Amino acid sequence: MPENTRVTAALIVIGDEILSGRTKDVNIGAVADFCTDLGIDLKEVRVVADEMDDIVAAVNAVRARYTYVFTTGGIGPTHDDITADAIAAAFGVALPINAEARAMLEARWKQTGTEANESRLRMARIPEGASLIVNSVSAAPGFRIGNVHVMAGVPVIMRAMLEAIAPTLEGGRKVQSVTVKAAVGEGTIGGALAALQAEFPDVKMGSYPQMGKDRVMTELVLRSEDAERLELAAGRVRAMVAEAHRLAGVEPPGDAY
Amino acid sequence: MPENTRVTAALIVIGDEILSGRTKDVNIGAVADFCTDLGIDLKEVRVVADEMDDIVAAVNAVRARYTYVFTTGGIGPTHDDITADAIAAAFGVALPINAEARAMLEARWKQTGTEANESRLRMARIPEGASLIVNSVSAAPGFRIGNVHVMAGVPVIMRAMLEAIAPTLEGGRKVQSVTVKAAVGEGTIGGALAALQAEFPDVKMGSYPQMGKDRVMTELVLRSEDAERLELAAGRVRAMVAEAHRLAGVEPPGDAY
Repeated sequence: MPENTRVTAALIVIGDEILSGRTKDVNIGAVADFCTDLGIDLKEVRVVADEMDDIVAAVNAVRARYTYVFTTGGIGPTHDDITADAIAAAFGVALPINAEARAMLEARWKQTGTEANESRLRMARIPEGASLIVNSVSAAPGFRIGNVHVMAGVPVIMRAMLEAIAPTLEGGRKVQSVTVKAAVGEGTIGGALAALQAEFPDVKMGSYPQMGKDRVMTELVLRSEDAERLELAAGRVRAMVAEAHRLAGVEPPGDAY
Repeated sequence: MPENTRVTAALIVIGDEILSGRTKDVNIGAVADFCTDLGIDLKEVRVVADEMDDIVAAVNAVRARYTYVFTTGGIGPTHDDITADAIAAAFGVALPINAEARAMLEARWKQTGTEANESRLRMARIPEGASLIVNSVSAAPGFRIGNVHVMAGVPVIMRAMLEAIAPTLEGGRKVQSVTVKAAVGEGTIGGALAALQAEFPDVKMGSYPQMGKDRVMTELVLRSEDAERLELAAGRVRAMVAEAHRLAGVEPPGDAY
């Protein structure tokens, strides 16, 4: 397929707490689902520490390579929140207090009787040239500069920000998928599957072992942008799996294994 | 602290199913916990697709930089399992059938009445010069070449392989941590915390917002290899938080917020 039909993305997860194991990330899966729904091809994810050099290097490594970059984490009010500093450094721009961000924060602070202090005002520092990403949960905005979308790490806020940016993103041609379940191990059908993959280079075939209650199962996932070719390939894979079931003398798996 | 006391690592998670959102990764958290327990500093994680060039580039980008590299995924019997091929390419070595790996697999196949076929034999292909990592769950081994440890993606097998390699890894000086909970938002204490961080550069202070039932809370996590300095810093942080509680007229949080 022509390269220009692909819309691609990378995600950078920023935070020592993920790398130490203290916090278990759930944003990778949420961003992956979000991209798949929009027809955006998430090509890589990096998890980096709260270190200026590491964040700058990761952002600059991916922003020229993909249509979109998403980052999560490090935009709070404390000294270890350095994502805005790192993004400003990566783009070589200043990091002034943004009047619109300040107004959003002050409106919320007034509402909740929260004191405006220097630490909280850090959250209004936005790289020059960036536009804001609204935070419906706790007011402190994310921002977009170039193709880089900087979002909060707290999952509920991150998901609200994804909803906010969704209308601004150009989706790609959606990849459709068909799953075929087999009641045999993937080694049993690996040869036949490889032959079908060679025959259908435009339908990506993935094989995933599943440990069932009593026996090993396999889930085959076929993905393509071309619905007709996908259905054709799925028919061939289903026939191949049925034959494998017959040879092994096993019943096809139900949906609930 | 001297650089030579640090033992570092990177993790490469290999698999289209993670990037599409179809499978939600749990191996990052497990490897992070494993490293923290051994005193190994996990410095970065990358999630890459089942693409030869992407895997080779990621492995070569990190293996010279860190003490250890771990990979998960892509060592099964089907055509989309190309991790062994990619690691052999990254190291510039051949990928022959390994006699020891073949014997492990054949012993298991005999036991379970599984047919030995070309697809299953793919799992005995091990880069030249690598040593095997025993798989107590399903026999197909992982392997170690240089500082790179190649493991399965299925979480239960991945964890068994981590247990298998643990005795072969050199741990670093363990980082200890103290958590201090505050019943105020992180913006309230961010300035005082930054001042304490400046005073204790050898104690890393992280601040994590928590959405409590009724109000915003903050967890402060202090980490250091030096137990005495950690305790000293923790005492100062506790006093700072107590003063913030007094000023805000709130009770300290219990353990159960």
